[in-house]
Amino acid sequence: MPEMRRDPITKSWVIIATERARRPETQLIDGDSLNEGTPHDPGCFFCSGNEYTTPPEVMAYRKEESLPDKPGWSLRVVPNKYAALNMDGNFKPSNSNKGLKVSGYATGMAEVIIETDHHSKNIALFTDEETYAVLKSYRDRYLVLSQENAIEYITIFRNNGKEAGATLIHPHSQVLAIPIIPTNVQNEIIGAKEHYDQTLSCIYCDIIENEIKEKKRIVYETDNFIAFAPYWSRIPFETWVAPKFHSARYEVLSNSQLEELAQVWKAVLHKIYVGLDNPPYNYYIHTAPVHESPDKYYHWHMELIPKLTMAAGFELATGMFINIAIPEDCAEFLREIPVR
Amino acid sequence: MPEMRRDPITKSWVIIATERARRPETQLIDGDSLNEGTPHDPGCFFCSGNEYTTPPEVMAYRKEESLPDKPGWSLRVVPNKYAALNMDGNFKPSNSNKGLKVSGYATGMAEVIIETDHHSKNIALFTDEETYAVLKSYRDRYLVLSQENAIEYITIFRNNGKEAGATLIHPHSQVLAIPIIPTNVQNEIIGAKEHYDQTLSCIYCDIIENEIKEKKRIVYETDNFIAFAPYWSRIPFETWVAPKFHSARYEVLSNSQLEELAQVWKAVLHKIYVGLDNPPYNYYIHTAPVHESPDKYYHWHMELIPKLTMAAGFELATGMFINIAIPEDCAEFLREIPVR
Repeated sequence: MPEMRRDPITKSWVIIATERARRPETQLIDGDSLNEGTPHDPGCFFCSGNEYTTPPEVMAYRKEESLPDKPGWSLRVVPNKYAALNMDGNFKPSNSNKGLKVSGYATGMAEVIIETDHHSKNIALFTDEETYAVLKSYRDRYLVLSQENAIEYITIFRNNGKEAGATLIHPHSQVLAIPIIPTNVQNEIIGAKEHYDQTLSCIYCDIIENEIKEKKRIVYETDNFIAFAPYWSRIPFETWVAPKFHSARYEVLSNSQLEELAQVWKAVLHKIYVGLDNPPYNYYIHTAPVHESPDKYYHWHMELIPKLTMAAGFELATGMFINIAIPEDCAEFLREIPVR
Repeated sequence: MPEMRRDPITKSWVIIATERARRPETQLIDGDSLNEGTPHDPGCFFCSGNEYTTPPEVMAYRKEESLPDKPGWSLRVVPNKYAALNMDGNFKPSNSNKGLKVSGYATGMAEVIIETDHHSKNIALFTDEETYAVLKSYRDRYLVLSQENAIEYITIFRNNGKEAGATLIHPHSQVLAIPIIPTNVQNEIIGAKEHYDQTLSCIYCDIIENEIKEKKRIVYETDNFIAFAPYWSRIPFETWVAPKFHSARYEVLSNSQLEELAQVWKAVLHKIYVGLDNPPYNYYIHTAPVHESPDKYYHWHMELIPKLTMAAGFELATGMFINIAIPEDCAEFLREIPVR
């Protein structure tokens, strides 16, 4: 049946419309085939030996005897040279014309996490240790940047493939620390609080409990983490990863929890890579704001959004999505792809 | 100065970051060059002579002596063959698992407005009469579809260019009648009501009054309509058109008002076409919901969103935009392009 489903957290509706998948014009955007390319490109700003071409590193995982901004690192974090924000000014929003023109200084920090010294390794092909290092760097940068008083939220995200907005081949994630709580997170917090006020339980915990019971939208799981297709998926093969235990904050994960999370995350990336032939996608972490405390009712999670179809006028006009695939089918497809 | 600006209606923040425009990797997506192509393609479903290939027309502007689903039309409306919605079932949302799984039948209607019998004329090159006919058809379809009790909102939009999601060359707009009020419109209504409760005035009227006073974000205007770049533009060259007089509903426009609106709309499309070399873009109408009555504080408007840059992980994660151009500069650039 043609169906609409509602996101229980933000209350946004999604149209599930497999009819549209039959359109002859539906464009499936091809992924890059960057997988096992050259390990080193002398012209790449992020490759080993070219450390002097980036701003000085702010963190690195590197061999003990090696020097900052020199080779010997396995993961390196540098300020984004083309940052949309900086810490030179103070956000202090001004409210002129009766609230019609509210603006503030774009206070913040933008960083690039160079995930490996390999120029073109696909993140789905990272070793266990490499995947763990990426997830650990997310936590470590969060902990440092959240010390800045002016920062209210830290967004960690990754663009995979040109069609998903990646502009450089060398594997990297991005961190943007901003002086406000972004709309999408705010909407989740509002929805989660409403649910908590009514039921005294975390809506994410309730959703995960239900997924474990129903089984049919699970992609992969371990003792403490679950990967699943949300019932209200906006996009074919949208996949969320969350802890089964209640926790509002990604940044409090211990090293051993990060190891287990890396196992789940690697499985998801590998299933997507194999099953969808290395599609373009974006992923990001939703965790609690730095200074707000929705700790009782918020629940951190990672969202992976493949870019298999193109959002157009309807999505822009409404903020709603038309999903041309059934979430249960997508989850089953990914679930059955064996993990290396 | 690097600046953040807030949408006074929805309270979403935008980062204005011209720094990023300097990135060597910034991709400006090319537009199609469909402008003055072939007037007729015998293989096109929407071309004259092929009326039998579409579902039967539900409306047409055609020569008096001509017959339905035969040549002789200048504009023709047909049901979308690949519709995401249909009127076979009743929306009736069910609320199972304590609100965690809310779903309903995807009740609704999807129509295609074939704007001209010319196979490949760019809408920016339409005559005054053709532009008027398109805007009139939006009103006429709205009035018909809004008679259906199950319909809560009617979205009218257009995808221009392949990169903006257009899948067929033949000039067309789309109409989607849906059983709920979409998120983006609901958020505007909530913001507008808040402003009205505090000030007893319409926030859109206040914004327009301010634009007329400040002048620097105006793109074009007539006695009754204004085209401007919102102060909080999310995208370079984002352009809104609205009536200067207060009105929540596009569908109550008279024919003579539609004629004047067509003059403004044609000027905007032409300026975008000439100034940005026929870029891909989406546009849509935001008007009041069918059965709700926010008539005192809501204000219909059209939003045109060029697709000059690509939204990626940050936008998906946050719902915020990083705009790499200053709205005042974009408005000035468009304002100075002479209208044919």
